[in-house]
Amino acid sequence: MTVGTLVLLRHGESTWNAKNLFTGWVDVPLSEKGETEAQRGGELLRETGVLPDVLHTSLLRRAIATANLSLDAADRHWIPVRRDWRLNERHYGALQGKNKKQTLDEYGEEQFMLWRRSYDTPPPEIEPGSEFSQDADPRYADLGDGVPRTECLKDVVGRLLPYWESAIVPDLRSGRTVLVAAHGNSLRALVKHLDGISDADIAGLNIPTGIPLRYDLDESLSPKNPGGTYLDPDAAADAAAAVAGQGR
Amino acid sequence: MTVGTLVLLRHGESTWNAKNLFTGWVDVPLSEKGETEAQRGGELLRETGVLPDVLHTSLLRRAIATANLSLDAADRHWIPVRRDWRLNERHYGALQGKNKKQTLDEYGEEQFMLWRRSYDTPPPEIEPGSEFSQDADPRYADLGDGVPRTECLKDVVGRLLPYWESAIVPDLRSGRTVLVAAHGNSLRALVKHLDGISDADIAGLNIPTGIPLRYDLDESLSPKNPGGTYLDPDAAADAAAAVAGQGR
Repeated sequence: MTVGTLVLLRHGESTWNAKNLFTGWVDVPLSEKGETEAQRGGELLRETGVLPDVLHTSLLRRAIATANLSLDAADRHWIPVRRDWRLNERHYGALQGKNKKQTLDEYGEEQFMLWRRSYDTPPPEIEPGSEFSQDADPRYADLGDGVPRTECLKDVVGRLLPYWESAIVPDLRSGRTVLVAAHGNSLRALVKHLDGISDADIAGLNIPTGIPLRYDLDESLSPKNPGGTYLDPDAAADAAAAVAGQGR
Repeated sequence: MTVGTLVLLRHGESTWNAKNLFTGWVDVPLSEKGETEAQRGGELLRETGVLPDVLHTSLLRRAIATANLSLDAADRHWIPVRRDWRLNERHYGALQGKNKKQTLDEYGEEQFMLWRRSYDTPPPEIEPGSEFSQDADPRYADLGDGVPRTECLKDVVGRLLPYWESAIVPDLRSGRTVLVAAHGNSLRALVKHLDGISDADIAGLNIPTGIPLRYDLDESLSPKNPGGTYLDPDAAADAAAAVAGQGR
């Protein structure tokens, strides 16, 4: 028996993706290409009849706009919305705002890949008061001193899972189709948990942008379709290959 | 003492406003002009420092898009969202989809103004299965047979006030600045209640599109600024005069 359907949607290209900058918690908008990706994601929802009953998003506008555009295209703009910082992208620490190619050239391949893909090595912490830190951002006021200064993927798993258990799982158990519109690393953290991927193997997993990924979950919330099912499998395969080459 | 700040925002021009059609519950998008109005509304919020902590919208995309665009412009896209059909526009019954000028010519000034502005005379009911009815719309599935077939303003007051009491008032009492993004008639119904306007006098009240209207409420939820304060008073005066001439 399927208790609920989970649909993951990674936001489309942002203006900083287009410029090859580390973004993290910096709240940049979608590029025009990213807006088109989001609309296409919504058309896939409509065409395949995977119609969300409730939306969960991060507090960052590239995920929020992706959700708004795709749900409007799927004629589901009216569903209930829940937002939480625990779905945010990984905080990229002192790398936020830096060019990926320059960082690669400056620190070398090994250090670069460690920061990008190791499970438990965070980048250096961002300076308090830096133009790219979130110390004074009112949306995180409730966190007080708990606003991250940097995160590795393990940190993202740690802050994501309480939200999964307390907010997303209850929606799934009520039989809803749940859309989670979020980010490369918060969705990798969630997929790691769902599919039971090891700390080592998660490094090799890339989730393409703008292509909804459907999981049918059984009563123990295990995927009946391990790895999920992309609503456009051909586009997903092409896009995953392209993401793996980023920063080169 | 002010318990909370209420900000009302009527959606900008829709594609059917531009064509002079009765819209009601038909879910049409904003026109380009309407999108610009929404962004300007958000700039007014930012410029005046009236920053919403929570959003309430109807289930119609012209109000939802107005909220999304204005909150993005005000850098408040990340606030919590609540949506409810009780904030929808008045259901215009059999007039939905009809041209306002043609309706005026066909039925005459007296009948036309009765349908548009009388407090308790609804237009004729819409036919079940009409292309402009909402019988089969999944967003109203919970209403069952309670989906309106027509409404007068008195009906709107009757279905709006339970939501005001149960959902909006608690947000205000917790000290939040509450944005309500909705429609000409659902906002007239709310203003009638707030300002204690009589059934006769509400006919003369028009709320302009895209200009936030702020109410500072005391502990009894009475306005400390009766009639509210438009964040751009000059534009509001110009726009209200233009709305009064609609259909001519």
